[in-house]
Amino acid sequence: MDPKYPEMDLKTEASTRCNDNNQGKVERVSSTPILQRECHGQISHLAIDIGGSLIKLVYFPRDSDGSSKDDKCSTSRERNSISNGDINSSIFGERLRFAKFETSKIGDCIEFIRSKQLHLGRCLHQECPSGEKTIIKATGGGAFKFADLFNEKLGVSLEKEEEMQCLVAGANFLLKTVQQEAFTYADGQKEFMQIDHNDLFPYLLVNIGSGVSMIKVDGDGKFERVSGTSVGGGTFLGLGRLLTKCKSFDELLELSHQGNNRVIDMLVGDIYGGQDYSKIGLASTAIASSFGKTISEDRELEEYKPEDITRSLLRMISNNVGQISYLNALRYGLKRIFFGGFFIRGHTYTMDTISVAVKFWSKGEAQAMFLQHEGFIGALGAFTGYKKHDHEQDQFVQRCSSKVSCADNNLSGGTIKSS
Amino acid sequence: MDPKYPEMDLKTEASTRCNDNNQGKVERVSSTPILQRECHGQISHLAIDIGGSLIKLVYFPRDSDGSSKDDKCSTSRERNSISNGDINSSIFGERLRFAKFETSKIGDCIEFIRSKQLHLGRCLHQECPSGEKTIIKATGGGAFKFADLFNEKLGVSLEKEEEMQCLVAGANFLLKTVQQEAFTYADGQKEFMQIDHNDLFPYLLVNIGSGVSMIKVDGDGKFERVSGTSVGGGTFLGLGRLLTKCKSFDELLELSHQGNNRVIDMLVGDIYGGQDYSKIGLASTAIASSFGKTISEDRELEEYKPEDITRSLLRMISNNVGQISYLNALRYGLKRIFFGGFFIRGHTYTMDTISVAVKFWSKGEAQAMFLQHEGFIGALGAFTGYKKHDHEQDQFVQRCSSKVSCADNNLSGGTIKSS
Repeated sequence: MDPKYPEMDLKTEASTRCNDNNQGKVERVSSTPILQRECHGQISHLAIDIGGSLIKLVYFPRDSDGSSKDDKCSTSRERNSISNGDINSSIFGERLRFAKFETSKIGDCIEFIRSKQLHLGRCLHQECPSGEKTIIKATGGGAFKFADLFNEKLGVSLEKEEEMQCLVAGANFLLKTVQQEAFTYADGQKEFMQIDHNDLFPYLLVNIGSGVSMIKVDGDGKFERVSGTSVGGGTFLGLGRLLTKCKSFDELLELSHQGNNRVIDMLVGDIYGGQDYSKIGLASTAIASSFGKTISEDRELEEYKPEDITRSLLRMISNNVGQISYLNALRYGLKRIFFGGFFIRGHTYTMDTISVAVKFWSKGEAQAMFLQHEGFIGALGAFTGYKKHDHEQDQFVQRCSSKVSCADNNLSGGTIKSS
Repeated sequence: MDPKYPEMDLKTEASTRCNDNNQGKVERVSSTPILQRECHGQISHLAIDIGGSLIKLVYFPRDSDGSSKDDKCSTSRERNSISNGDINSSIFGERLRFAKFETSKIGDCIEFIRSKQLHLGRCLHQECPSGEKTIIKATGGGAFKFADLFNEKLGVSLEKEEEMQCLVAGANFLLKTVQQEAFTYADGQKEFMQIDHNDLFPYLLVNIGSGVSMIKVDGDGKFERVSGTSVGGGTFLGLGRLLTKCKSFDELLELSHQGNNRVIDMLVGDIYGGQDYSKIGLASTAIASSFGKTISEDRELEEYKPEDITRSLLRMISNNVGQISYLNALRYGLKRIFFGGFFIRGHTYTMDTISVAVKFWSKGEAQAMFLQHEGFIGALGAFTGYKKHDHEQDQFVQRCSSKVSCADNNLSGGTIKSS
């Protein structure tokens, strides 16, 4: 079962609801009026973020006759099931949609784009110059690596958008326009945060993909990648695959939910004979050494439960990211840390560990925040890049009509720029 | 082959030489006049640091008749071979000696102490109160965990010394008194640093044991454990054992020397189609995601070379420790970072990775430093704790006679305190 990502509805305001189900994942269905798509020339309905592990798509669906859903003002809800290797994504809703594929299965992604006619840039309601290649906004390293493949297979041109810039544009867009985008997670409870748009900057954006980028964001288009770590989602999947028979990220997450890291990790109490190391504030249950308990046992890999191994691994990585993030926030005097990227996937244990790490290292002074559309920040940022193609109407992103959620939305005259 | 730790000679000044052999380890033999042992009451010739993975011993050897080598003013050089499970330590020299055992093989350690008569506290040249239990200074969590075992097996009482305090006392002792203790490592070259004893503090001490402690040291006995990480030596050995058939830390290190991490790690160039990500200063050869390359390959664990796996693992951990250390040094405005702990073991690749990490993240403004007696800092610190038992002569550690190396040694009237 896969987390559901909320779609975005252009024309109607909808409620947001969050269900913490029994799978350790948060099911999220929300829609908030935020985007007005403008279609000029050979511009696609699609933006794409091709990372080291995953390809993320943000797109407007089209009907079989080539028109977009919006062209027809369709109101019916539909359900798309995307076959994605061994991952199945089910996506609900009407408008702006999200899909992901493993980068290693880029052929499936290309077939998906073809089947949805997302590579066709022409707009049925307008005259478009003929003979021009459709442009698809693309970010992530794969925008460079796979440019020729997209040209060859789909006849489209990938227009490269700088990765960090897209992450920042996507995060700013979400934080400013989606009513319930940011939330904290503690003790199994999710709490949405009211973001004061006039007091959003500066903040630290931590995107946990295959690797991790940490970006100090000072405004729209104003940012600096200040740090990062190579211990991220790719490490979880890579080590997880080597240590277990699991092949997919979601299988590993599922397993970790049932595991017990104390079988694998060396705790303070294991070293101190069951006691706390109270003088330095470490409880007996604190992890002294990740995977450290296995060193004193003559057990083979196969004798450990994959559930326990994946839980230790997830905790090691989440805790490490939380710690390094906090140290960087501190370094630059940033009060807020927003965590995104597909590593999180609404997984409660992951969010809990990151939250606890930030709380622990900051001695309670800082708090981790998460984003509803965590995995699609970069792709959304690339989508906002279509604005520069819109010469006739300088309103790619329009003020939404909601009085409540978007009162301070100033993206219509905003400064999000594409490289 | 095991790195050799320099012994310390009480009465003669000796040269220090360092050979970087072909095994990727630095063989170190040095002796510098620093300690004057005082023996009063039932005090042992031994101090012990019992960590989660390793037990470290610092001791004065005794002859078979129970007298110490120093009692006889022995000048002959001898060689002790310590069987330590599957690790063999060869220790050269005459005086203060170093040995280590795996904590899981504590029985071997107890037998070693018995065979060397180190549990006998009486001093042959003095009258000692009878009926008193021999006291052995002990630090690390095992001082709590194994106190009863030592009492039962050897009839000794472990006097617990606080772990961080011992690390600081040991490091200060070494940095102030041993001529060539601290060095930098870059491009395969080791360079000893002249430490100005009047400008030693503050510094960051990073002890990489099973877990990692980071301690801000402001003076003798003045310190604060400011940070740490659970991703340390226990993680290297634990994950290394699970991922390979190797059982010991040194086997893993040996293997890593022959490995190629690019087979396992996802590099920036792997994502960016061979290109640098120059806009944020990442070369195509930089690691984007540790273990990330394995996610896109349908290979089983057995199909990867253990050499490559161990190298990735070592680099991941060393780099992570270097990064978190630097961030903490920066946070507290500390110019110097000294790395110790048995994780390092004089291993060139480990030191190189830590050095590069500190240099990279500090943009060349900070430099990692290492300690010759890296693995025995805590045990040495515990040894200095015997001072408080020395009521008649307040000179446990005497100014050495060397004009060069110890001119500023003020430990005789120092402030190292035991808890």
